[in-house]
Amino acid sequence: IRPISWAGDKLILLDQRLLPFETRYIEARTVAEVADAIREMKVRGAPAIGITAAFGMVIALIEKKPRSIDEALKVLEQAKNTLAKTRPTAVNLFWALDRMYNKAVESASKTASVNELLQDLEEEAKRIFEEELEAEIRMGIYGAEFLENGDTVLTICNAGGLATGTGIGTATAPIYIATALGKQVSVIAPETRPWQQGARLTVYELMQNGIRTTLIADTAVGLVMYKKLVNVVMVGADRILLDGHVFNKIGTLNEAVLAHEFGIPFYVLAPTSTIDTKSKVEEVKIEERDPDEVRTVRTSQGPVYVTVKDVPVFNPVFDVTPPKYVTGIITEKGVAIQPLHKNLRRLLNLT
Amino acid sequence: IRPISWAGDKLILLDQRLLPFETRYIEARTVAEVADAIREMKVRGAPAIGITAAFGMVIALIEKKPRSIDEALKVLEQAKNTLAKTRPTAVNLFWALDRMYNKAVESASKTASVNELLQDLEEEAKRIFEEELEAEIRMGIYGAEFLENGDTVLTICNAGGLATGTGIGTATAPIYIATALGKQVSVIAPETRPWQQGARLTVYELMQNGIRTTLIADTAVGLVMYKKLVNVVMVGADRILLDGHVFNKIGTLNEAVLAHEFGIPFYVLAPTSTIDTKSKVEEVKIEERDPDEVRTVRTSQGPVYVTVKDVPVFNPVFDVTPPKYVTGIITEKGVAIQPLHKNLRRLLNLT
Repeated sequence: IRPISWAGDKLILLDQRLLPFETRYIEARTVAEVADAIREMKVRGAPAIGITAAFGMVIALIEKKPRSIDEALKVLEQAKNTLAKTRPTAVNLFWALDRMYNKAVESASKTASVNELLQDLEEEAKRIFEEELEAEIRMGIYGAEFLENGDTVLTICNAGGLATGTGIGTATAPIYIATALGKQVSVIAPETRPWQQGARLTVYELMQNGIRTTLIADTAVGLVMYKKLVNVVMVGADRILLDGHVFNKIGTLNEAVLAHEFGIPFYVLAPTSTIDTKSKVEEVKIEERDPDEVRTVRTSQGPVYVTVKDVPVFNPVFDVTPPKYVTGIITEKGVAIQPLHKNLRRLLNLT
Repeated sequence: IRPISWAGDKLILLDQRLLPFETRYIEARTVAEVADAIREMKVRGAPAIGITAAFGMVIALIEKKPRSIDEALKVLEQAKNTLAKTRPTAVNLFWALDRMYNKAVESASKTASVNELLQDLEEEAKRIFEEELEAEIRMGIYGAEFLENGDTVLTICNAGGLATGTGIGTATAPIYIATALGKQVSVIAPETRPWQQGARLTVYELMQNGIRTTLIADTAVGLVMYKKLVNVVMVGADRILLDGHVFNKIGTLNEAVLAHEFGIPFYVLAPTSTIDTKSKVEEVKIEERDPDEVRTVRTSQGPVYVTVKDVPVFNPVFDVTPPKYVTGIITEKGVAIQPLHKNLRRLLNLT
């Protein structure tokens, strides 16, 4: 799977809104088209949005054809503003746009050629993609050490190559690397209500990549562990605190506690940029989303109601897993094992 | 809610297939209509099916108007055969039909009046309903002892009055009794994929009865316990072994382990007829059902696909909870607490 490809003058993007019912690629040749792809969630997942926005800055120069360096910087500033408005809370988006704009300013101080500026920006966008890919391959290599031939991995949500844009992913990286190294690894993917990323995205991605995949209802995670049908749990993370608390997709805590109880190792895979070195667990607010996400189900025919339309709903988007349930945290810089509050600091070279 | 009402010459049944989208009552005046209601799952839940079939035997006599006791017994034998074929594995169905037929034979040995036979059978069917209702009220009274004013109960699936036909239910009985006694009790109901009995039935039933109800995704059961948003877990059971192992709807094990870990009491509510005094845990086969139940979701527009159509699926219909996670088992004969393997025997007067 290649969710994001750069074709020299345009982006080719897998339209993730249509998955898994339809595999359709779209092209983005203008800043407006890139902005639309992000805003309309044709591209999703924090790293994938960052990469797409970075190439959006390159596309700005190709589209607008500025005739001077000054004009080019104005074009880039406009593109940055347009792209930044697409998803108001996406940290990777702002980070990638800032990095691209700073690169342009640096380049403009060295050359008067718009063409050289364009080349510098294209290289920078490619570098953002390559750095993401390299981090994921590193996580995959570290994580593959914990997979034996014949193992079955339980995951949750989609911490896969669709979310990162590279095709490798975070929680899925060890599965792909182990498979590439000749190990036979299977996956059990829970549906992951309410958004069903497991059923819609993970199952699609793994099957496209030839990985043996079994879908279960979220209610069945306990039984598959009790029956020892899984050897290891591997999940992604939205935020990791320095004491080892892991914030991730709702349902992660269920798997962590059950794995702990049934003696199954539980690994979290995430780049070190996910580690929040400042917050305490009680300071992190768990976002609640639209009740209709739980009242409805996304189908090939759009969202449809599955319950009483006005039933009150509690719809937290993620949960928090205390450090005691986490066997290890696998990052691009290595693996932090217990005690996490010591070893995460060591990994980040904090004193 | 009255899922089953006897109107003297006909049954009035709540058509559960349409819930929660439509509240429609149907009438059954003939054996064929009663058989259809059971076969087409307009009535569902083991006790509800038994009660419906019992009244179906009464309806047979009203419909066919036999002129002699011998003719009446033939009519009843035919009705018994017809009704027994509706759901091939429903133990309560066969039990209720046998009980009604045996009552008819007993009555026929005492009277030559078809009218007296009819009256005897009508009383017996009412008695089956009343015995079920009384058992549930007893469970409710025992269970209400474990509920404080202001408590929130986490449940699973629908072990409610819709499933038993009485309107009281098993896991819901303490909630209704405690509420009737003036306690304020709220419920958190998980959706319960793949059949979504929580979203479709429990939420509907509780809201109709004026109980404060919140729907959650199955993935959120861990977080609501971690955050102490629930005080107690109450679930039904399909089968309880004498050593305390509980077989119930898939997802029960998740709640049991999480409750144990977070120090929340976990109660199982079921009549003593649910206790299997013979089987060992390794002898009980966990039924697996159609993969399409997980690949699709039941909506107001029927089942629709939510994933890749040919993805392999593991779809166990129930799971098994080891005794260590069960705080108590609440029956119509009293409550068995730990150690369950001793106290379940004591409850049943087994030596």
